[in-house]
Amino acid sequence: MVTGVSIGQYLIRRLQEYGLKDIFGIPGDYILTFYSMLEKSPINVVGCTREDCAGFAADAYARVNGLGAVCVTYCVGGLSICNSIAGAYAEKSPVVILTGSPGLRERGNNPLLHHMVRDFSTQKDVFEKLCIAGAELSDPISAFREIDRVLDAVVRFKRPGYIELPRDMVNVVPHISHVFPTEVSASDPQVLSEAVSEARHLIEKAEKPIILAGVEMHRFHLQDELLALAEHTQIPVAATMLGKSVLRETHPLYVGLYEGALGREQVTQFVEESDLVLLLGTFMTDINLGVFTANLDPGKCIYATSEQLRLKHHHYHGVTLPDFVRELAQQKIAAPVRPLPEGIRMGMSPVGEVTDQPITTQRMMQMINPLLDDETIVVADIGDSLFAATELVTRGRSEFLSPAYYTSMGFAVPATLGAQTARRDARILAVIGDGAFQMTGMELSTIIRHGYDPVIIVLDNHGYGTERWLHAGDWKYNEIHPWAYSKLPEFLRGGTGYEVSTEKEFYAALHKAWDDREGMSIIHVHLPENDASPTLHRLGQRLGARV
Amino acid sequence: MVTGVSIGQYLIRRLQEYGLKDIFGIPGDYILTFYSMLEKSPINVVGCTREDCAGFAADAYARVNGLGAVCVTYCVGGLSICNSIAGAYAEKSPVVILTGSPGLRERGNNPLLHHMVRDFSTQKDVFEKLCIAGAELSDPISAFREIDRVLDAVVRFKRPGYIELPRDMVNVVPHISHVFPTEVSASDPQVLSEAVSEARHLIEKAEKPIILAGVEMHRFHLQDELLALAEHTQIPVAATMLGKSVLRETHPLYVGLYEGALGREQVTQFVEESDLVLLLGTFMTDINLGVFTANLDPGKCIYATSEQLRLKHHHYHGVTLPDFVRELAQQKIAAPVRPLPEGIRMGMSPVGEVTDQPITTQRMMQMINPLLDDETIVVADIGDSLFAATELVTRGRSEFLSPAYYTSMGFAVPATLGAQTARRDARILAVIGDGAFQMTGMELSTIIRHGYDPVIIVLDNHGYGTERWLHAGDWKYNEIHPWAYSKLPEFLRGGTGYEVSTEKEFYAALHKAWDDREGMSIIHVHLPENDASPTLHRLGQRLGARV
Repeated sequence: MVTGVSIGQYLIRRLQEYGLKDIFGIPGDYILTFYSMLEKSPINVVGCTREDCAGFAADAYARVNGLGAVCVTYCVGGLSICNSIAGAYAEKSPVVILTGSPGLRERGNNPLLHHMVRDFSTQKDVFEKLCIAGAELSDPISAFREIDRVLDAVVRFKRPGYIELPRDMVNVVPHISHVFPTEVSASDPQVLSEAVSEARHLIEKAEKPIILAGVEMHRFHLQDELLALAEHTQIPVAATMLGKSVLRETHPLYVGLYEGALGREQVTQFVEESDLVLLLGTFMTDINLGVFTANLDPGKCIYATSEQLRLKHHHYHGVTLPDFVRELAQQKIAAPVRPLPEGIRMGMSPVGEVTDQPITTQRMMQMINPLLDDETIVVADIGDSLFAATELVTRGRSEFLSPAYYTSMGFAVPATLGAQTARRDARILAVIGDGAFQMTGMELSTIIRHGYDPVIIVLDNHGYGTERWLHAGDWKYNEIHPWAYSKLPEFLRGGTGYEVSTEKEFYAALHKAWDDREGMSIIHVHLPENDASPTLHRLGQRLGARV
Repeated sequence: MVTGVSIGQYLIRRLQEYGLKDIFGIPGDYILTFYSMLEKSPINVVGCTREDCAGFAADAYARVNGLGAVCVTYCVGGLSICNSIAGAYAEKSPVVILTGSPGLRERGNNPLLHHMVRDFSTQKDVFEKLCIAGAELSDPISAFREIDRVLDAVVRFKRPGYIELPRDMVNVVPHISHVFPTEVSASDPQVLSEAVSEARHLIEKAEKPIILAGVEMHRFHLQDELLALAEHTQIPVAATMLGKSVLRETHPLYVGLYEGALGREQVTQFVEESDLVLLLGTFMTDINLGVFTANLDPGKCIYATSEQLRLKHHHYHGVTLPDFVRELAQQKIAAPVRPLPEGIRMGMSPVGEVTDQPITTQRMMQMINPLLDDETIVVADIGDSLFAATELVTRGRSEFLSPAYYTSMGFAVPATLGAQTARRDARILAVIGDGAFQMTGMELSTIIRHGYDPVIIVLDNHGYGTERWLHAGDWKYNEIHPWAYSKLPEFLRGGTGYEVSTEKEFYAALHKAWDDREGMSIIHVHLPENDASPTLHRLGQRLGARV
């Protein structure tokens, strides 16, 4: 029972109860009262250089921690994070947006207040398109209920939620006694039972089953259940690009990444010749499915996500993804034995001789692979940073963070800030293209300020390299101005910079950086002309035909 | 008559007809076909480091050139410019947003395409809240008409417009003959005549009239008419902060900036004791009106903007702002003589002795003032950059660019890129706080790439200095990480850096930078603790009471 608490205090308290320890953002006058309340609270405020970076950081923090939040001022702040929040929506990351707005008492006669766009509701109207739930806390009587509703929706659906605090409401104490609901959404037991029973039956009848695990296994914390299901049925597991690392990739049942015609041929074939595919928490996106070259017959699929449960061509309503996966994992299932073909698992190629040859992305990944351990988090930006990084083999508790569906450039550096804030002792390796780095790389400022020690690898192919594979021709628009990335430490006053072109130089810089826990390291890698991972070659062929 | 032209070609042609020579943006796969078409066209494509910077650059370009445009990819690009476009909407800057989207043929069965948020219309729905007009060019029969409609609305209302090009529509040639309308909106002659006649009568009856000129005089290119009206009636002219430089500030009839209780007392008093205030193209915003401390009786006002024409308490409908101002300027008006009181005009204080004392913003402005000439454009970011820069005295054709109403931090550097692109031979001086610089300052990359030569002054008060005046207390959230701004030239490979703390150092750096036309100069100014312009002192007192 809550009494005598202000709206701002209640909000902070509920966020803490959901496990939030840190918040990202930038102050501004319409949110200053709440910022001051936050600064006095146990929640740690991480100031960023730009609001959109705060949004990306909150997204990555949410992926690692289970809930993230960003706190910004009205319109100039809020409208600067639209893209970050859109990405969190698309890729199901539970982020709460807290924003200030003009006080209710300032709004009489419809004045033109600074930071206003069209009318007082513009920002709220925009976020309605980008969030699963939203509330403007303009009424003390309903404010606590509204906070409960938005936070519950964020955590339940793993999508962003929007809370707008008019600045004169922060300190208002509602004259109510409030009890917040603790109910959890439950599945209909009869529907659940029938669905699980049919699924078990389909598995037992199958000869060549496979699990295709997606990112929702991670978002809904179902990795243990996934592991149990796989281990006791001995069904092999493939993952999508967005779901990479939901199962440790050294596990004997792990087949590899399934990306349709973009992936390794042997994996594609193994998945597509299955007579039963259990798609668990998998988004059917174009990139996940190799730009729709994936060849999966729905009549041979069990498709379970937080949004639907479909067995072959029929649907079960009212069953949650966690209930379905947990229940299925507890069944005794006499699954057929399906051994993995020789050579299908992506081994770690030995590093071999390190030469004076120009360093390629493929060789870089070979050199990085042996360094990864259970405490490593890999963050990949999009383009060939992502494609190359898919060749890294993640270990036990390691995480792989990337905007592999929404594919917004510039995610990686602020996401590194977010992930490192959520897990201070993790070793973070981030791989970023030069184009993406120019968008948000200066958020290293905040990483340096906090003394974090990630290793940042900038892949320099002087421009938007992936686009060169999508649209043939020598287009000027793909070229960018060359920065001296390795001199960033002098400019931002912190960290260590390296500039490399050959295998030997990269190898030496990587190992020095890896051993350096004093601060951030940035390695500027000059790539040879037309360097590309095998995946990018294949993607270029497929996507290029449509552009 | 247009025939045999593709949708993309028609769009480029119409933009050129409206005087567009340059366009800002970042390519991405959903817009690559159109980018390639642009690159082959006479329109110059200026690639930026980030989309929001491209938006700010297009806004500043529009303010100088009369129309601006930004071209970005779907969602990850478009949703990154929401804040820039919101600013253009709020401050009436005619910017066209061109964006790609998935091809119509790719949309069957509602697939999850990369860069998608909720459904195919998310981006369009968001921009509906931020634009005066919008169109998705999904139908060849209506595409040309839709382009005409959006461009006409942008130019007529000086607000942003949105055009979405599904990527498979760019090369489609509609099988129609199209004639675009050339009608211009005209005022109702009888209403116009009565309004002008009443205005003339009010002026002739008045004893102490004044013109308060706003930013729409600039947006609608009415500076010559304003000058004519002032000169032949000899009515004194004050300007709002957003309208600064609509009349050259050395003009004998120019009184100064009117900012309510925030402005200089003598100006405030002179304006408020007028018995007739002609508000021409003035937004009644909180910052313009000194946080509503302005004291103007509507019964003594003629209020003419693009949105309304109000004389005392009654309205005239169907009269355009340009018609009203032009017509009024042509009347023979026997206005009363109202001499300017002694000392009301902001003179240029002589620079005086340049000492080894710490440099203050006020002293900086004194030293900059004598350098300004007709070819100078001053760009001010918000906070004390803006307040201090209001003390600069603009000359003949000089421009003063600042987001003085929407007050979005980070406007100045990308706006410098936009203004310099629109006017290559102008001398641009930009004043930016360190917090704002950390948001978008890296767009100097593009300025360096093009060999532009602006002088960039970074005011370093290690954080969000204006906020310290708004909310008393020693709050950590106002502190930011210190960058070595003067080392930016080594990091971005271009330009010259200076770091100064004293008057002598600043004076020397300023003059070296001013004489250097080889490239960009950046001057890092360390301000003394608690430095603030007189205006910021006053604003803090007024706004701080509400935060």
